[in-house]
Amino acid sequence: MRISELSEQSGIPVASIKFYIREGMLPRGATTSATRAEYDEQHLARLRLIQALSDVRALPLARVKEILALVDAPEDSPYATLGKAVSALPPYAEEASTERARETIEMLGLTYDERFAAVAQLEAAIRGIEAAGLAWDAETATRYAAPLAQIAAAELAPLADLNESEQVSYAVLGTAMYEPAILAIRRLAHQHLLATGLTDDDM
Amino acid sequence: MRISELSEQSGIPVASIKFYIREGMLPRGATTSATRAEYDEQHLARLRLIQALSDVRALPLARVKEILALVDAPEDSPYATLGKAVSALPPYAEEASTERARETIEMLGLTYDERFAAVAQLEAAIRGIEAAGLAWDAETATRYAAPLAQIAAAELAPLADLNESEQVSYAVLGTAMYEPAILAIRRLAHQHLLATGLTDDDM
Repeated sequence: MRISELSEQSGIPVASIKFYIREGMLPRGATTSATRAEYDEQHLARLRLIQALSDVRALPLARVKEILALVDAPEDSPYATLGKAVSALPPYAEEASTERARETIEMLGLTYDERFAAVAQLEAAIRGIEAAGLAWDAETATRYAAPLAQIAAAELAPLADLNESEQVSYAVLGTAMYEPAILAIRRLAHQHLLATGLTDDDM
Repeated sequence: MRISELSEQSGIPVASIKFYIREGMLPRGATTSATRAEYDEQHLARLRLIQALSDVRALPLARVKEILALVDAPEDSPYATLGKAVSALPPYAEEASTERARETIEMLGLTYDERFAAVAQLEAAIRGIEAAGLAWDAETATRYAAPLAQIAAAELAPLADLNESEQVSYAVLGTAMYEPAILAIRRLAHQHLLATGLTDDDM
């Protein structure tokens, strides 16, 4: 298809498509004449991915590029690839100390690498919780640990059935793209509980 | 304390503090003379809250104001207050149809109000997941439902022991501020599983 059709099918303006090509986020089309290039379904899929990361995840352009670069050229192991993908996700706060996070992680008995971005992200999260006047203690952390371990295990289960390139896409994009669904379902679960149970009796 | 000390203790520049006061996000200090106002611990707590919402949650100013307004003047019921708080959180995508989200919610057996922002947020999440080439089907949704219901129930349990104003803060700020911790712990659980189990055998 021509760039105008690619634009029409993706809903993304031609100028933006050209920008993504210049930035190396989208491969050039196959040149068919001096003024014409041909695009295919893979270009369309890539544009939809860029849109999902920019719009639904609201990631800044530099972070979208990091995610795309990982999908295209992953690290040596899924462990390392996932580690890098996580560092492209918010919160981006640089934490001078990660003491509170490490305390929680060790209390929960998780194996971790202290350079892993999620450690600093948990530290930022804990400081945010406390800055808002809310509690973060062993009891609070524990209410999240077992259910999230269950989710994480279920999410990793399909990896075994994927080929290497699918594993990378699944790990990198799954980390980024399932998160908004998790948050939405938690919010819906709160609403369900308030509507069906807690509202009349306890609140 | 004077505004200079408030700035020092919060790490927020005086100009920003004055801006928050002009925007109605922070109460004025008590006037002690024509050129002096006195601030207290409540001002400091409010500044920390603004910072947590802006930095850790990376919410735009207009959304921070919505959250603060809800804490100060909640709706008639926690159900309605929580509904409004959720609409101040991302993803903000307006979805013309919420068919996919409603299909999931009904499959999961949750009671819901279709105007609740989390419905459109789930729709945006599902579209993002599929735009990234990932699956969203009954099996996928089910892996999240029971663990998140467990988390939601544990989160609502403390409400019963709080007074009305504490309930509002807890519901509104808890919705916003525990989310980054949930995401960080999920990312850490993935790393733990890859490090301890899946890496050698299955990947």
